[in-house]
Amino acid sequence: MDGRQFDVEVTGLVAAAVGGDRRAVARLLSWAENAPSRWPALGAALAPHTGSAEIIGLTGPPGVGKSTATAALARAYRAAGRRVGVVAVDPSSPVTGGALLGDRIRMAELAGDPGIFVRSLASRGHLGGLALATAQALRVLDAAGFDPLLVETVGVGQAEADIVALADTTCLLLAPGAGDGVQAVKAGLLEVADILVVNKIDQPGAGRTVADLTAMLRLRVDAGASAPPGVVRLAAAQGEGIDTLVERIAAHRRGLAATGELEHRRVARAAAEIRALALAALRARLAAAEQQVDLDSLARAVAAGTADPASAADRLLAALT
Amino acid sequence: MDGRQFDVEVTGLVAAAVGGDRRAVARLLSWAENAPSRWPALGAALAPHTGSAEIIGLTGPPGVGKSTATAALARAYRAAGRRVGVVAVDPSSPVTGGALLGDRIRMAELAGDPGIFVRSLASRGHLGGLALATAQALRVLDAAGFDPLLVETVGVGQAEADIVALADTTCLLLAPGAGDGVQAVKAGLLEVADILVVNKIDQPGAGRTVADLTAMLRLRVDAGASAPPGVVRLAAAQGEGIDTLVERIAAHRRGLAATGELEHRRVARAAAEIRALALAALRARLAAAEQQVDLDSLARAVAAGTADPASAADRLLAALT
Repeated sequence: MDGRQFDVEVTGLVAAAVGGDRRAVARLLSWAENAPSRWPALGAALAPHTGSAEIIGLTGPPGVGKSTATAALARAYRAAGRRVGVVAVDPSSPVTGGALLGDRIRMAELAGDPGIFVRSLASRGHLGGLALATAQALRVLDAAGFDPLLVETVGVGQAEADIVALADTTCLLLAPGAGDGVQAVKAGLLEVADILVVNKIDQPGAGRTVADLTAMLRLRVDAGASAPPGVVRLAAAQGEGIDTLVERIAAHRRGLAATGELEHRRVARAAAEIRALALAALRARLAAAEQQVDLDSLARAVAAGTADPASAADRLLAALT
Repeated sequence: MDGRQFDVEVTGLVAAAVGGDRRAVARLLSWAENAPSRWPALGAALAPHTGSAEIIGLTGPPGVGKSTATAALARAYRAAGRRVGVVAVDPSSPVTGGALLGDRIRMAELAGDPGIFVRSLASRGHLGGLALATAQALRVLDAAGFDPLLVETVGVGQAEADIVALADTTCLLLAPGAGDGVQAVKAGLLEVADILVVNKIDQPGAGRTVADLTAMLRLRVDAGASAPPGVVRLAAAQGEGIDTLVERIAAHRRGLAATGELEHRRVARAAAEIRALALAALRARLAAAEQQVDLDSLARAVAAGTADPASAADRLLAALT
């Protein structure tokens, strides 16, 4: 792997992206999504330009209006003169789906604005998973001067939890009647959420949803967790509550910075990424070892009861180079 | 790791469990759940006694009546003179929850029947995950002569999909109004389900749920997948449809055996287990390497932009023993 940092193509594109070339950004994002072999060179070239952008995660069950809220947030930050990067991630889809924000937002009023960059990422099944690809994509947009970066996920599973862990501030969106909070709670998202939002606050049942969430927050506080501020009431489609959400996100970040937690989170995130990259490399070596020891024969012996799984695993590990 | 197969305690308990000693079975199940260090010895001692039990998985969103259906199935198999093992698995819970089948069924009419053994498994966060622990637990019950083995999961996430992959025949349960099928579809459970069941068929909206599922099945057939038989209509609490479900499970298994697919699935399952055990060992080595190279310092350098993640991952891998 020596010399891999010196990828002339990557270095040139990163310089262009830092200088504001959107086509260079798009090309680098494609590599972030599809070309893990480029990541070492990409990481080395991007490192001096990254680490400053604010990263905001938006997650919640399908149907709560995450895309609408993300677009409204993006407009609010644009109105404040900031350049906004948006990454919409769908771990459940093998290819970029039409339902994703990226496709819709590009066709909407934000298209053509050089101060915004929107990208959809979908799972392509490569080693290391979508969270690693998302981390690279965020680094590309950060280096290209976009700040804040909004990360929207489609659902509330473990893959989504891994992705929102990339954010400094995570907003969990729920809505009356659309995808109850049970799945979000089971996926542990309530624990990782910094700000709880009830969207579609103008719809029937919104009061009940706010009350349920407030009760859950009280339970969390009772259990000794830090007390978060109350639920944000949003009607993203009408733009109501967006200013409050923007202020709450800013206040959360100020709090993180003041306590040193922001630095702590960023170091923890870097550690998780290093660990995930190492594990992806080990998985690749394991796949090679499977070929070498003929895993299928070992598996037949285990299925037939003539070998035990642990001894077979040892054979596999012994073949690891 | 030499000599680890010769664990006198394990060998003795396995002999007792094979002979019908329930306390030995309970002890071995505890090791399956909590003591990965015992798994090699356990696997070696169990291997000659395993591989014959029929494994039936039941999965679906919360609230569809999986526990009731599992209990009804268990009673039906008992009535047919079979000894039934039940493993209820909750990947979302760090400790065994009161909502799990095991706790309820133990207190119900099945308690005290030596022909049934019920065990709840919950995630304890050990390396390798709950699917590996479940595989060991199934092997213990198989060796102790329980057949069929029913595996019930609590939700429809990826962890549940890994667990139902341990079954020869997987039943996906849905119910009108309780947890729509969208999450199940997203988790890929519709693809792995061998038999689709609509429970609570006597409740309002059941016709719609059956129609939706039938439409989804048609889409699957159109996409070239093998055509499964239609949806099973169940009212588990009233015992209606259980005979049909039992017959459909038996028919599915006959089909698997006739085509060689049963053997194919069991070998694939053994391969997955060997791979997972090897990966768990690699994760443990990685954790040791993290201590050695001071991952925290590496992560600080990456967060500060003075190092790139891939080079840091290489440092980590170089320290792997």
